[in-house]
Amino acid sequence: MSADPKDFINDAARLAPELVAPFPNSRKVHVRGGRPDIHVPMREIRQDDTPTNRGAEKNPPVRVYDTSGPYTDPAAAVDLRRGLAPPREAWIEERGDTERLAQVSSEYGRRRERDPALHSLRFPDPRRPRRARPGRNVTQMHYARKGVITPEMEFVAIRENMRLMEARDQTPPRQHPGESFGAAIPREITPEFVRAEVARGRAIIPANINHPELEPMIIGRNFLTKINANIGNSPLASSIEEEVEKMIWATRWGGDTVMDLSTGKNIHEVREWILRNCPTPIGTVPIYQALEKVDGRAEELTWEIFRDTLVEQAEQGVDFFTIHAGVLLRYVPLTAGRATGIVSRGGSILAKWCLAHHRENFLYTHFEDICEIMRAYDVAFSLGDGLRPGSIADANDAAQFGELETLGELTKIAWRHDVQTMIEGPGHVPMQLIKENMDKQLRECGEAPFYTLGPLVTDIAPGYDHITSAIGAAMIGWYGCAMLCYVTPKEHLGLPNRKDVKDGIIAYKIAAHAADLAKGHPGAQLRDNALSKARFEFRWHDQFNLSLDPDTAREFHDETMPKESAKVAHFCSMCGPQFCSMKITQEVRDYAAGQRLSEEEALKKGMEEKAAEFVQQGVEVYRKA
Amino acid sequence: MSADPKDFINDAARLAPELVAPFPNSRKVHVRGGRPDIHVPMREIRQDDTPTNRGAEKNPPVRVYDTSGPYTDPAAAVDLRRGLAPPREAWIEERGDTERLAQVSSEYGRRRERDPALHSLRFPDPRRPRRARPGRNVTQMHYARKGVITPEMEFVAIRENMRLMEARDQTPPRQHPGESFGAAIPREITPEFVRAEVARGRAIIPANINHPELEPMIIGRNFLTKINANIGNSPLASSIEEEVEKMIWATRWGGDTVMDLSTGKNIHEVREWILRNCPTPIGTVPIYQALEKVDGRAEELTWEIFRDTLVEQAEQGVDFFTIHAGVLLRYVPLTAGRATGIVSRGGSILAKWCLAHHRENFLYTHFEDICEIMRAYDVAFSLGDGLRPGSIADANDAAQFGELETLGELTKIAWRHDVQTMIEGPGHVPMQLIKENMDKQLRECGEAPFYTLGPLVTDIAPGYDHITSAIGAAMIGWYGCAMLCYVTPKEHLGLPNRKDVKDGIIAYKIAAHAADLAKGHPGAQLRDNALSKARFEFRWHDQFNLSLDPDTAREFHDETMPKESAKVAHFCSMCGPQFCSMKITQEVRDYAAGQRLSEEEALKKGMEEKAAEFVQQGVEVYRKA
Repeated sequence: MSADPKDFINDAARLAPELVAPFPNSRKVHVRGGRPDIHVPMREIRQDDTPTNRGAEKNPPVRVYDTSGPYTDPAAAVDLRRGLAPPREAWIEERGDTERLAQVSSEYGRRRERDPALHSLRFPDPRRPRRARPGRNVTQMHYARKGVITPEMEFVAIRENMRLMEARDQTPPRQHPGESFGAAIPREITPEFVRAEVARGRAIIPANINHPELEPMIIGRNFLTKINANIGNSPLASSIEEEVEKMIWATRWGGDTVMDLSTGKNIHEVREWILRNCPTPIGTVPIYQALEKVDGRAEELTWEIFRDTLVEQAEQGVDFFTIHAGVLLRYVPLTAGRATGIVSRGGSILAKWCLAHHRENFLYTHFEDICEIMRAYDVAFSLGDGLRPGSIADANDAAQFGELETLGELTKIAWRHDVQTMIEGPGHVPMQLIKENMDKQLRECGEAPFYTLGPLVTDIAPGYDHITSAIGAAMIGWYGCAMLCYVTPKEHLGLPNRKDVKDGIIAYKIAAHAADLAKGHPGAQLRDNALSKARFEFRWHDQFNLSLDPDTAREFHDETMPKESAKVAHFCSMCGPQFCSMKITQEVRDYAAGQRLSEEEALKKGMEEKAAEFVQQGVEVYRKA
Repeated sequence: MSADPKDFINDAARLAPELVAPFPNSRKVHVRGGRPDIHVPMREIRQDDTPTNRGAEKNPPVRVYDTSGPYTDPAAAVDLRRGLAPPREAWIEERGDTERLAQVSSEYGRRRERDPALHSLRFPDPRRPRRARPGRNVTQMHYARKGVITPEMEFVAIRENMRLMEARDQTPPRQHPGESFGAAIPREITPEFVRAEVARGRAIIPANINHPELEPMIIGRNFLTKINANIGNSPLASSIEEEVEKMIWATRWGGDTVMDLSTGKNIHEVREWILRNCPTPIGTVPIYQALEKVDGRAEELTWEIFRDTLVEQAEQGVDFFTIHAGVLLRYVPLTAGRATGIVSRGGSILAKWCLAHHRENFLYTHFEDICEIMRAYDVAFSLGDGLRPGSIADANDAAQFGELETLGELTKIAWRHDVQTMIEGPGHVPMQLIKENMDKQLRECGEAPFYTLGPLVTDIAPGYDHITSAIGAAMIGWYGCAMLCYVTPKEHLGLPNRKDVKDGIIAYKIAAHAADLAKGHPGAQLRDNALSKARFEFRWHDQFNLSLDPDTAREFHDETMPKESAKVAHFCSMCGPQFCSMKITQEVRDYAAGQRLSEEEALKKGMEEKAAEFVQQGVEVYRKA
């Protein structure tokens, strides 16, 4: 496709194969909910049989969580110029508490609509926006608190049930004792459990009434750990085409939500294209666009300009807003002695505003006004950590923790309005201080979901910060963080290209999945078990296909052993046929079977030995020290 | 260079620039010890000045630990055909407890020497081997226990002192309270502390008397966390040339030790080339070569063949041996019910032998004989975990922990012989079970250093297992693991190429450094602080040069902003000039300074607010719940 937006619009239906090809040996399946218009998408991965002496042993297909939307479904005809089909449209309509507006409410939005120069850039057929009827509250939290289970809640309940998703006859995972950090994940996620968690504020379902294309998902620590991928153009690079493709690419590899952090020209139009074609929630940082409107002069920002921006974006369908309302005037001087000052863009904009006016942050003073807007569209708060540490030296300092306390105060205000709320977190934090962050967040913010960037556990690896941060992300996910904002290898250095986006996402899928295993999420281990069984049985195709990135796994294997025959070989390139430990293990197993040493007998034997040892040691239950 | 070994030998002095070029803005410095022939190499990174209103502020050079040997020193003329200069030669000689043998002791070694077909492959001028004089024990542990501080101990004491290595006038790192897991790292590492830790068995200095080329290093949890890189050809790929280059490559990027896991032809000759040119300790798994000698038939292995292999390799100069002496007959059936059986090559070879003969593992029954060999050359034990879990499902099971208990028993036997010993660990372990591994290892093995492969915290990411395992490695390093064996992206899939080796090493340098930060290693944070200061001040070159991989950092930056002028720009490609948070922070800082809000005043102000809050709340030190 060409880089000219006009050509983009003409060519948009022709998506590159790498963006839309179904995953190997996979098909899209939809699980029906209680009502016929709930179709929860999953990816089903077929497996080969295991050849045994007694004939072929079937390996059941494995279902995995699927964020890729209709793009990977050959049965769905996607045309970017029309946008995705809106599965939520009927649900929103039938609730009867919203109205379609005659025109967009934002002045800026109306100016953009009238500007003929933008015609070639605009999404062709925008929907008129919806808004809550006067006096109504349309948030998922509001329904939840009234005891209503929405279709969105039922949708996520089905989606979260990994035990449902996976083959039922798979061996259940062994659960090990271990530190659980108070996780309270039920064996089965029910719609009622979802409702209760949303009502409690412990989880959010970001789902703007103006984003009916969205396939609902939930963010909360008693659910699967989620990841966010950032995209967005900058004044220096990127086009509409690239951003839409990056969004498709990001959801293909597992982005649960996407934040559009554009700061360049035409961000209103870029956003519309992204929203109309995005199956996941979209988040933004509205202050970026507000600053554009005052030509980058932070001190000229006003509540009115900001308010108009919130309404503009809410009516486009943005599902969550980062709002840096915790950057209070009194915290700003606390950053002056830092190694790296304020590293959050939004945080530094507001710090500058506060100092220029020597007044309190207008997002803080207008917080209740913002809540009014949020609840009229069901936009969720992502309360920004404008004072997050930008280096190990600044981790967990007074500025960071002061802001976190204020975010806790704001959470309670948002909840009074039934506005869904999550809290953003750092940043750069050494391993031994990560848990302190998580514990303080849960305490200060009443268990509202935590959504962290990394954290990066060291500063010394620019070029590899997807790894430095995946370490911190896995740990904080285990400790209870609900969503992990990815970091790409280009962090601190430049803008991520498509490869960087994928590398960042895979690193974060690893971190999130590791956290789910550590939390003991029911069923999380079934994919590990299936892949390990395939690996052990030399079912190479299944090993690739069950992995997070089948393309790379296959490519790496083929670098050493390119022939198709190598994929049925009962050895691999690392050791060669003679030294293959898996092959030798098979022999051990056959031997053990031949010796009639069944697993049970072996275990029994182990127990007997322990018993003998016990007797030998004097049969004392409590040994003396 | 050509792939023909003959040409390799002729051309070996011409090393590719990417293997020997000094790091940017860096020079090799040597810190003198108490005796004039102790020269501890470090890399010193120069920094640019910081321009300020009051003129240029000097940024002191930063010294970092340097594993790359003479290769990165333009003053050292390396000729692979002659091998590296042997700094330890005089130290070993003057101890007077070793003798030069007239010929190699190993029968196999002598056959290889006599074989004319191997002439073109052989290292040109091998040294005659040394061995302890009859009745003498030449291990570092033996000297340590006698109260002797060897030059090797003094060398590592200087090398470990990061506070010495770094610029002295750098701001010291803020130490945060946090979980320390009992780390007892002194503010300054003295030769006496090194001696005491080696005597106690809590650290080892792998340093075979036949590897005088080695620059001594120490492995123990009260020292910097180390990483090991595996190289080695296989029956299917790789040549002598490639392996030597991989060794140089691995030490260039930070490999503290290198294991040569070759299983192909000519491994005796490959090993000689590697050892003569390697500045770091070399480890091997002798059972691989022993198995070669019986044509891959594990059941035909004998103690005599294995013994000859140990002597052969000890006389070449291998510094540590992986010995799978804990794979006991009674543990083998415990693996039959596992998801992935036995995945260690050595473990499966010995399991097969045990079952074939229905006798106890001959490495176990001959363990004291092995100790006799180890102490005659000062080869350290790396007690192999032949039954390590190969999947999440098998983590921390009866087979794994049974073997670990036996390794503890063997550690005590090795220590009776004053043989230096470390313990190998898993493998695949979910996050919540990692600490249990570390704690059990410390308990069972009397705090002998733990040396783990990862662990990988999930099975589902083949192609990215350097990341899945770096997560587990960082955590277990924090918990007290002394050395982390790297995993490359090719793990489970194929043989690592040069890029994979580097990717694996950088991931592990990150994990090891994160662990050092978390353990509160004095001075570890100085490199983070220097890099973060450079980042904050837009000293792009310094940010690149202080990073673990300057080449990649620079390349990533240049992808978006290739011009040289961008490297002095006070903004970067991510946000552009207007939105740059670091730029805004500078303004905040200037503003704070203008308002005479110095750092101290700001902090005081914060205290005053807290004080007011305290008074407001009723001045109760212990508030009621």
